[in-house]
Amino acid sequence: MGHDSTYTNQKFKVVGTRVNRPDGVDKVTGRAKYGADAYAPGQLVGLFLRSPHAHAKIKKIDVSKAEKLDGVKAIITSADLPDLTGDDRDLTDILENCMARGRALYDGHAVAAVAAIDMQTAKKALKLIKISYQKLPHVTDVDQAMEPGAPIIHDFVRDRKTGKPSNVCKISQFGHGDVEAGFAEADVIIEKTFKTEQTHQGYIEPHACLANISSDNTGELWVTTQGHFGFRSTCAELLGMDVAKLKVTSSEIGGGFGGKTHVWIEPIALALSRKANRPVKVVMSRDEVFRASGPTSATSIDVKIGAKKDGTITGATADLRYTNGAFPGFWAMLGSMISFACYDIKHVKSIGYDVIVNRPKVAAYRAPSAPMPAFAIESVMDLIAAELKMKPIELRIKNAAKEGTRASYGPTYGPIGIGPTLDAAKNHPHMRARLKKNQGRGVACGFWFNFGGQTCVDLNIGIDGSVNLIVGTVDVGGSRASLALIAAEELGIPYEQVRANVGDTASLGHNDMTDGSRGTFSSGMATIFAARNAITVLRERAAKTWDIPLESVIWKEGAARATGKGNSNRPPLSLKELAASAPNTGGPIAGHNEVVADNAGVSFASHICDVEVDPETGVTKVIRYTVIQDAGKAVHPDYVEGQLQGGAAQGIGWALNEEYVYGDDGCLQNPGFLDYRIPVCSDLPFIDTQILEIPNPDHPYGIRGVGETSIVPPLAAIGNAVSNAVGVRMNHTPMSPIRILKAIEDSKA
Amino acid sequence: MGHDSTYTNQKFKVVGTRVNRPDGVDKVTGRAKYGADAYAPGQLVGLFLRSPHAHAKIKKIDVSKAEKLDGVKAIITSADLPDLTGDDRDLTDILENCMARGRALYDGHAVAAVAAIDMQTAKKALKLIKISYQKLPHVTDVDQAMEPGAPIIHDFVRDRKTGKPSNVCKISQFGHGDVEAGFAEADVIIEKTFKTEQTHQGYIEPHACLANISSDNTGELWVTTQGHFGFRSTCAELLGMDVAKLKVTSSEIGGGFGGKTHVWIEPIALALSRKANRPVKVVMSRDEVFRASGPTSATSIDVKIGAKKDGTITGATADLRYTNGAFPGFWAMLGSMISFACYDIKHVKSIGYDVIVNRPKVAAYRAPSAPMPAFAIESVMDLIAAELKMKPIELRIKNAAKEGTRASYGPTYGPIGIGPTLDAAKNHPHMRARLKKNQGRGVACGFWFNFGGQTCVDLNIGIDGSVNLIVGTVDVGGSRASLALIAAEELGIPYEQVRANVGDTASLGHNDMTDGSRGTFSSGMATIFAARNAITVLRERAAKTWDIPLESVIWKEGAARATGKGNSNRPPLSLKELAASAPNTGGPIAGHNEVVADNAGVSFASHICDVEVDPETGVTKVIRYTVIQDAGKAVHPDYVEGQLQGGAAQGIGWALNEEYVYGDDGCLQNPGFLDYRIPVCSDLPFIDTQILEIPNPDHPYGIRGVGETSIVPPLAAIGNAVSNAVGVRMNHTPMSPIRILKAIEDSKA
Repeated sequence: MGHDSTYTNQKFKVVGTRVNRPDGVDKVTGRAKYGADAYAPGQLVGLFLRSPHAHAKIKKIDVSKAEKLDGVKAIITSADLPDLTGDDRDLTDILENCMARGRALYDGHAVAAVAAIDMQTAKKALKLIKISYQKLPHVTDVDQAMEPGAPIIHDFVRDRKTGKPSNVCKISQFGHGDVEAGFAEADVIIEKTFKTEQTHQGYIEPHACLANISSDNTGELWVTTQGHFGFRSTCAELLGMDVAKLKVTSSEIGGGFGGKTHVWIEPIALALSRKANRPVKVVMSRDEVFRASGPTSATSIDVKIGAKKDGTITGATADLRYTNGAFPGFWAMLGSMISFACYDIKHVKSIGYDVIVNRPKVAAYRAPSAPMPAFAIESVMDLIAAELKMKPIELRIKNAAKEGTRASYGPTYGPIGIGPTLDAAKNHPHMRARLKKNQGRGVACGFWFNFGGQTCVDLNIGIDGSVNLIVGTVDVGGSRASLALIAAEELGIPYEQVRANVGDTASLGHNDMTDGSRGTFSSGMATIFAARNAITVLRERAAKTWDIPLESVIWKEGAARATGKGNSNRPPLSLKELAASAPNTGGPIAGHNEVVADNAGVSFASHICDVEVDPETGVTKVIRYTVIQDAGKAVHPDYVEGQLQGGAAQGIGWALNEEYVYGDDGCLQNPGFLDYRIPVCSDLPFIDTQILEIPNPDHPYGIRGVGETSIVPPLAAIGNAVSNAVGVRMNHTPMSPIRILKAIEDSKA
Repeated sequence: MGHDSTYTNQKFKVVGTRVNRPDGVDKVTGRAKYGADAYAPGQLVGLFLRSPHAHAKIKKIDVSKAEKLDGVKAIITSADLPDLTGDDRDLTDILENCMARGRALYDGHAVAAVAAIDMQTAKKALKLIKISYQKLPHVTDVDQAMEPGAPIIHDFVRDRKTGKPSNVCKISQFGHGDVEAGFAEADVIIEKTFKTEQTHQGYIEPHACLANISSDNTGELWVTTQGHFGFRSTCAELLGMDVAKLKVTSSEIGGGFGGKTHVWIEPIALALSRKANRPVKVVMSRDEVFRASGPTSATSIDVKIGAKKDGTITGATADLRYTNGAFPGFWAMLGSMISFACYDIKHVKSIGYDVIVNRPKVAAYRAPSAPMPAFAIESVMDLIAAELKMKPIELRIKNAAKEGTRASYGPTYGPIGIGPTLDAAKNHPHMRARLKKNQGRGVACGFWFNFGGQTCVDLNIGIDGSVNLIVGTVDVGGSRASLALIAAEELGIPYEQVRANVGDTASLGHNDMTDGSRGTFSSGMATIFAARNAITVLRERAAKTWDIPLESVIWKEGAARATGKGNSNRPPLSLKELAASAPNTGGPIAGHNEVVADNAGVSFASHICDVEVDPETGVTKVIRYTVIQDAGKAVHPDYVEGQLQGGAAQGIGWALNEEYVYGDDGCLQNPGFLDYRIPVCSDLPFIDTQILEIPNPDHPYGIRGVGETSIVPPLAAIGNAVSNAVGVRMNHTPMSPIRILKAIEDSKA
C-alpha cells in the first residue's frame, strides 16, 4: 500500500495512525444493532403490497376483507396519506413514490401497507387486499423514452420548447468556449456512443425501521440510514409533525452507498404506527430492495473529443441521457457537471437529459452519476491516444486539470491531485508489469466533488478525563475512529481516551447526511472547533485554579501550562486532573460546534487495471488492480484504503456483471443476489492502493472526502483493459461474458 | 387549590401555565419504555441467588452443576468481581452490597447471579448452585444494635472513644448555644422517645436494566434510574471501564423517590454480560425489591424541648438513632441536620447515631431522614403547646425561623417560607372546620434543604423553528414539561414548539442525579443559560442578515428586532424565520450550558390533617388533608401540586400502615404489596394544596426544589391528629390499628 504524505507540512501525533476501530468488536460479535435489531413492546409487523405492473391505473383498492382479518391493526393506502407537501414537487414525488397515488409507476411500486400482529397475519392480509388495475403502456429504456410517441409517464413534465408532455424532465448544460471552433482545431476527432445498465448499491443490510408515533403526534423512528436528520425532516413534513417532535435514531448501517439517503418505507411505517397506535417494524425483503428502493441510472451517452497531434484536446462534448426512474431527478445534470472535470479543455460542453421511465426512483450511488460519463470519456481518451499513437497515460497527463484550471462545470480549481495521481500511475511498478496472452491493461481517471454542509458536534469530558464525542453524521466507513483521532489530536490525549458516538436527532442540531464523502471532512472540522472550544474551557479552569489570567495559560500536549513571569514553575495541569476537579471549578467541561463546512475539496483518482479475458467464454478476470487517489490528509489510512478498495470493488462489479434486467412486460427479472451478481471475494484480486495526501487548504487538517471517487474510474479502466485484451472496443456495461462474446463476434463480422 | 404568586414581581408568559404534559399520552397508552421494556438481540435473562439468612458466613459456593446446565451462559459470584475500589470505602460497600463477599449481611443479600437463555433455565440454575452457610448472630433493631454485646457486623467499624468494634459507624452533632442554659430558662420541658419503622419507597416499577458489554470493554446500560450519569460513574469504576465507554440510557421511570439513586443489580448485570458476551436483562421481583433494594431507616429518637410560658423555645435537643442497613451511611447525620430547621432556637443540639444492622443497605427516600425527627419534634411541640395552653399553630408561629435566623445545622437563612406557610395554615378554612366525634386535627411543619449541583443542557433549534431541549436530569415528576416551559419563556415562543428530552450519558456532560428536588431547579437554570446562549446566536444571525452590529439587535417576544437609528423600520425576524435561513447564515442554531447550580433554596411546608379513628378497630381514616408549601416559582403548578400531594400521600402511608416486619430469624416477613400496605386511592382523601411562591433569590426565575418537603410533616401531622382524636399521645409509626388499640389500652391501664 503506497502512502505519500510529502505534500503536507503539518505534523500529527495520532491522526494518521492505524488504530483499532471502536465498532470492530461489536460488528464481528453481533452486538452491533442494525435496522432490524430494534424492538418495542407490542410492536407490529409492517408489510407492503406492491404493483406487479410496470405502469397501471389503480382503479380500486378494496381493503375491507383484509381489515376484518384478526390481528390486522392498520392498513394504509394513499387515501390515508393526505398530501401536505404543498408546492414542494420533490416532496410530493417522495410521497407518491412511498405509496402510489392513483397509478402504479413501476414494477414494485407500493400500493398498500399492512400492520399486523405477526408476519403470517400480515402476509395473509396482503393477499386479502383486492386491487383492480388497468394496465398502461410502459417504457423502461432511456432512449426509447425520449422517442416521439413514447408512453408519457407524467403529464406535468413538459418539453421545454414545445410545451408538450415529455419524459425529459430536465436538460442541463455545462461547459465553456466554442466547441465547434475547438473541433475545427483538431487533428483527430473521435465520436462514440456508450450505454451503461442500471445497477444497485447492493448494500447487505436491507432497509429496516421501527416506527412509533403517539396520538399526541410525537414519535420515534429507529432506522438504518445515512442521514437521520434528513429522514426526520422528510418524515416530519410528510406526516405533518414538528421536526423536534420526531426523534430519529440511526442504527448501525450495513452499507448504504447513497441508497440510504432517501426514504422508502419510513413514512409509511410511521403512518401505520400512527393509525395502529402501536410500534411498527418494517424490514424490506431483498426482492423489495431491488424492485422498490433506488438503484442508479441506466445511461446512454455520446462523446466526441478532438485533439491535436501533440495530444492537446481542442474540444469535447458529451450528450448524456440518464434514467431517473418514475420520478423527476437531476442525475444527468450531475453527470454533465462531472463529465470533463479531470481535464483542462478550452472548448467543452456537456448536455444532460434527465429522463423518466417506468423504473424505481433513482437514488444516489457512491459518486452518483459519475462512473457512466467516465466510462464513455475515458474510453474515447484511449481511442484518441491510439489514433495519435500516444501512451494513454501521457495523453491524460498532457490534458490534466491543475491549480487554476477552469473546471468544465464552472469553478476554478485550487490545488488538486489529478496530475499527481497520473504521475504516480505512470511511475507505478504496475505499469511496467508484463502482460500475457488474452490480457490487457487499462488506465482511467475519475473525479468527485465532495460535499460539506451543516454539521454539529458536542464534546463532553468525563470526570475521569475520558471524552465523549457526539457527532451527527452516520458512521458508514469508520468515521467514529477518524473523529476520535481528530479529537485526541486536538486535545493532546491518546486515541483510546476518546469515544465517538453518533447522536440521535434530539441530541444535536441538524446534520446533513453522510453523503458526498462529507462525514470525516465536515464532522472532523466541527470536532476540531468543538475541541478548541473545550480547550478554552480547560484553560479557563486552569487559570482559575492557578489564579492567573487566561492569557497566561496555554494548552500543549494534553495539559494546561502556565506561561509568563513567575508562572513557569507551576507543574502543568493535565486534562485528567482538570476533569477530576471540574465539579469544583465550574462544572462539567464541554465543547460545542455548529458549522456549515464549506469547500470540501474535490478529489481525483487514477486507476490501473489488468484483466484476462477468456475468448471462449467471454469471462473476464481482474488480475491486478491499483488505485491511486488524491485523498487529502488520511486521518486513518486503513479506512481510506478501505474506501479506495471498496469503491474499486463496486466499480468492478458494475463494469463486469451487475445490471437490472427488465422483461418486455417492464418487470424486473432479476431481483435477487442469485441473478444480480455482485462481486464476491473470489472475483477480485487484492486491490492495491496509493494515497496521495494533497491537503485541502480549506480544512484545518487538510482533509478531503475520500469515499466516492474510486468508484468512478473502474468501468472505464476495465473497459480499456478488456478492449486491449480482446482487441475490440467495449461500449456497454456490464461487460458480461455474453456482451464480450458478441463484441468479438461483431468485430469479426 | 390555593396558589399565592404575590411574593414575586417577575412576570411570566408561559411559565406558570398548566400545559399538557409531553409524556402523558405515552404513559397512558403504554408506549413509554420503562426499565423492563428494552430488548437486544440475543439477550439473556439474569437472575440473582440471595441469602436466606440475616447474617451468615459463606463457607463455599459450588456453581459447577449450574454451569453445566444447558443454556447457562454465565455465573457470577464475588470471586468474579475483583475489588477495584482501592481506598474508596463507600464504593467497596456498594460492591459488597451488590454481591456478598464472604458473608451474607442480610436476608436477601445477593450471593450469586446467573445469566441464561430463558427464565426457566435461569431459575433451574439458581437451584443448582450449592452454598454452604454458617449462620452468625444477627441484629435488626437499632437500639439493640447499640447495646453492649450486640452482634458486631463489621470489624472495621470502631467506637470513636474505645476503639472497640461497634455498630455505630458515625456520630454527628449539630446545633449552637448552650442547651443546658436553655433548659434552665424554660418554664416547661417535655422529653419523649419516638420510634419509626423502616419503610420502602414503594415505587411501582421494580429495578430493571439491560446490560451489554463488549469484549473491548465498551458497554451500554439501559436502566430505570434517577441518575444515569451517577450510575455510569459507579458501574464504570466497579468494572474498570472509562466512563466515556459506558453509555447509560435512562428509561422512563415508574417511581424512584430516592430508591433509584443507588445501584443494586446494575454492576452485576454488566458483569454477567461481560462474562457471557451477550446482553443481559435483569428485572427484580417485588420480593427482591423489598429484601434487597434500599428502604429508609428505622429510627429511635429522643426529643427534649423547653419553652417559656409565652411559648418561646429556650432549648431543644434530639438524639437520633438510625438504622443504616448492613453498610455504613450518613442517614442519622442528615436527620440531625434537619431536626430543628423550622425553628429559631437559641440553644439547640442534635446528635445523630448511624447504626449498622442486618437489614438491606438504606437508600434515600424523598427528603431522606427528615420525616422521622419531624414526627418526634412536631409531636413534642404539640405537647408543649398543650402544656402552655397555646394553640399548636401559635407556638409554631412564635418560634418559626425567618430571614436571618441561624439554622440549627449552621447556615443563616435568606428569605424563607416557614412563617408564611404557618400564617397561611392559620388562616386556612380547614383550620376552622368543625370536627366530629372520634376525629382529631393535627398540624405539623417540615423542612428540606434542596440540592443543586452539576448540570448540562443543550438546546437545538430545528429548521422549522421547533426546539429540542436535551437535559441530563431524569424526569421523575414532569420536569420535561417544566423545562420546556422555561425554554419557551426565554425564547418567547409557545410551549408546544419545544420538546424536552432526557439525553443519554454520551450526549451531555455529567449531570448529578434527579434527587434533592434538584431537577427543575438546576436543569431549569441551565436551560435559561442555554436559551440565552442560543438567543445570542439568533441575534448574530439577524445582525448578519441585516448587516448591522450585534448590539443593535435585541430579542423580544420570540423575534430579533433591530434597534437604533435607521433600523426601526425593519420588520422583526422571528425564531422560525431565523431557523429557516440558518443553513445560509452559519448553520444550525444551538445553545449550550454546563453549570454547577448552587443555592437551590431551602423549602418549608405546614400541613393540616383531620383524621377519624375507629376506637373499636383502631383504624384511622384521613378525612381532610391540606398541604401548604413554600415552593418558589411554580413553573407548572399542576406538577407542583402533584408533588405536594404525592409527598403527603407517601407520608400518610408511612404514618399509618407501612413497615418492614422482621422475624426473630432476622428475615423480612412481608416482602410484598399484600403484606406491606401502601395507601391506595380509597385510603386517601383529596389532598388540598396551597402553593406559596416565595422566590429563591439565587435562581433567575426564583425556582426552589418542591418535590420532597411535603413528605416530612405527615407523620407528625397524623400523629398529632390521631393523638387528638383518641386522647393518647402516639409515639411509634406506623400508627397501625394494632398500635393505636394498644396505646388506648395502655392509657387506660
